[in-house]
Amino acid sequence: MQSKAQEFRLQCRRGDFNSHTSGSCAGFAQANLIILPNVLAKDFEDLCFRNPVPCPLLSKIPKPTVVEDKRIINGEDFDIRTDLPKYNIYKDGKFVGEKSDVTQEWTEDHVGFLIGCSFSFENELSAQGFTPKHQKEGKNVSMYITTKYLNAAGVFVKCPYVVSMRPYKVDDLENVRDISRQFRKTHGEPIDWGYEAVKRLGISDIKKPEFGDAIEIADNEIPVFWACGVTPQAAIRALGDKAKGIVMGHSPGHMLILDLTDSKAKNL
Amino acid sequence: MQSKAQEFRLQCRRGDFNSHTSGSCAGFAQANLIILPNVLAKDFEDLCFRNPVPCPLLSKIPKPTVVEDKRIINGEDFDIRTDLPKYNIYKDGKFVGEKSDVTQEWTEDHVGFLIGCSFSFENELSAQGFTPKHQKEGKNVSMYITTKYLNAAGVFVKCPYVVSMRPYKVDDLENVRDISRQFRKTHGEPIDWGYEAVKRLGISDIKKPEFGDAIEIADNEIPVFWACGVTPQAAIRALGDKAKGIVMGHSPGHMLILDLTDSKAKNL
Repeated sequence: MQSKAQEFRLQCRRGDFNSHTSGSCAGFAQANLIILPNVLAKDFEDLCFRNPVPCPLLSKIPKPTVVEDKRIINGEDFDIRTDLPKYNIYKDGKFVGEKSDVTQEWTEDHVGFLIGCSFSFENELSAQGFTPKHQKEGKNVSMYITTKYLNAAGVFVKCPYVVSMRPYKVDDLENVRDISRQFRKTHGEPIDWGYEAVKRLGISDIKKPEFGDAIEIADNEIPVFWACGVTPQAAIRALGDKAKGIVMGHSPGHMLILDLTDSKAKNL
Repeated sequence: MQSKAQEFRLQCRRGDFNSHTSGSCAGFAQANLIILPNVLAKDFEDLCFRNPVPCPLLSKIPKPTVVEDKRIINGEDFDIRTDLPKYNIYKDGKFVGEKSDVTQEWTEDHVGFLIGCSFSFENELSAQGFTPKHQKEGKNVSMYITTKYLNAAGVFVKCPYVVSMRPYKVDDLENVRDISRQFRKTHGEPIDWGYEAVKRLGISDIKKPEFGDAIEIADNEIPVFWACGVTPQAAIRALGDKAKGIVMGHSPGHMLILDLTDSKAKNL
């Protein structure tokens, strides 16, 4: 029997779903994707090891339908070239466009990586009365490129954290921290919060996210920042032409839906 | 038969060695120590999980002579209350003094943690012709408190990275990065380098390290920064009176010498 997640992936594979996945397939965890030329793979694994909060590695994908480590991800029917709603394509470190599948771009020299996604704890936040505002408004989450650097790893030097932002009341902060903390492999608790954090993270205009939709922050709310799985794509942009060849990633907010349930994504 | 490391620990236990350990017991790995009231232990483990570069957890020490995870540390004769040359003592988050042992301060409510130390890769650097300058000069390494924050974890919020600094020629940088990269559980490769990094890390005066000795940087050298195992102690200072009770740590640069050899500390 097809799981709801598998139905969703097949829908993407047929090209019938091209939108963001915030709130899609409630109960199933989601994942970020980056597909690299093999020459970058070892350094990228080091980058994940040294930066497990923005880059929580769920599994390496040596072939489009194969996961290397099946402890977390074990999809019955799975092709990372087609099963996401939308992909970003980079050539020599530069963004060159979006596509709804990357069958043409994938070569035998490519290696994929699945990275935990903060959408995975949003259902739990909602279940406990802290529904993220962008979900209430049917929008994509706001994402920002910061001036905070990852711990350098091999060729990956001066790579910025990307963060997602959800507005919350100050009184709700500790509850929101406690709930998301349990999801250690999907970014866990926030890395920073408040308007001082906006400065610290070097975000020049909170109303203009680099990715996703702008979400209004009310007077009685503060911005709360989680590390974001778009970080690997920012790392590719930071590499510039050192990232020779074709790199692919999910379009921000347009994730792979996993068979892994949110409840199993806790305490990994 | 006593190992050289064990002889050294017994020397400390008798109170016969009170100096820094940079260059001591060549060939044996070294470790940072933090001893916390039990109430802080879970959040501290989370802090390590989320920040493995400054806080690479080697083992939890539930009793003074017991290691919880013997895969890395398995000392034949071992008492963390006495076997380091010098300790820092904190009360309610404030530094209150140094002692040569903490037998009086340890209670049944305390839990120790051993954290990897960058001294562990210094022998390999020396063996390959990149002897750290402070070793040549018989000094302690320079250490700085930065304005770069760790990823928050529970009660540990707004905690700064502490970094160690070694001057190197620009031409030697990639070699030095490659050598230290192999020591993933003892801080690994540098997190940043150069005079731009001094600014980025918020170091106000490179000539005045917060801990250790000042080391001159020649005109043809740049400062190279590694994450440092004094970071947990800076976290305790950042907690202030939320760190209720007695906390103990090694005096910066005055480490525990392990039976673990440097060659085994590679690729952990």
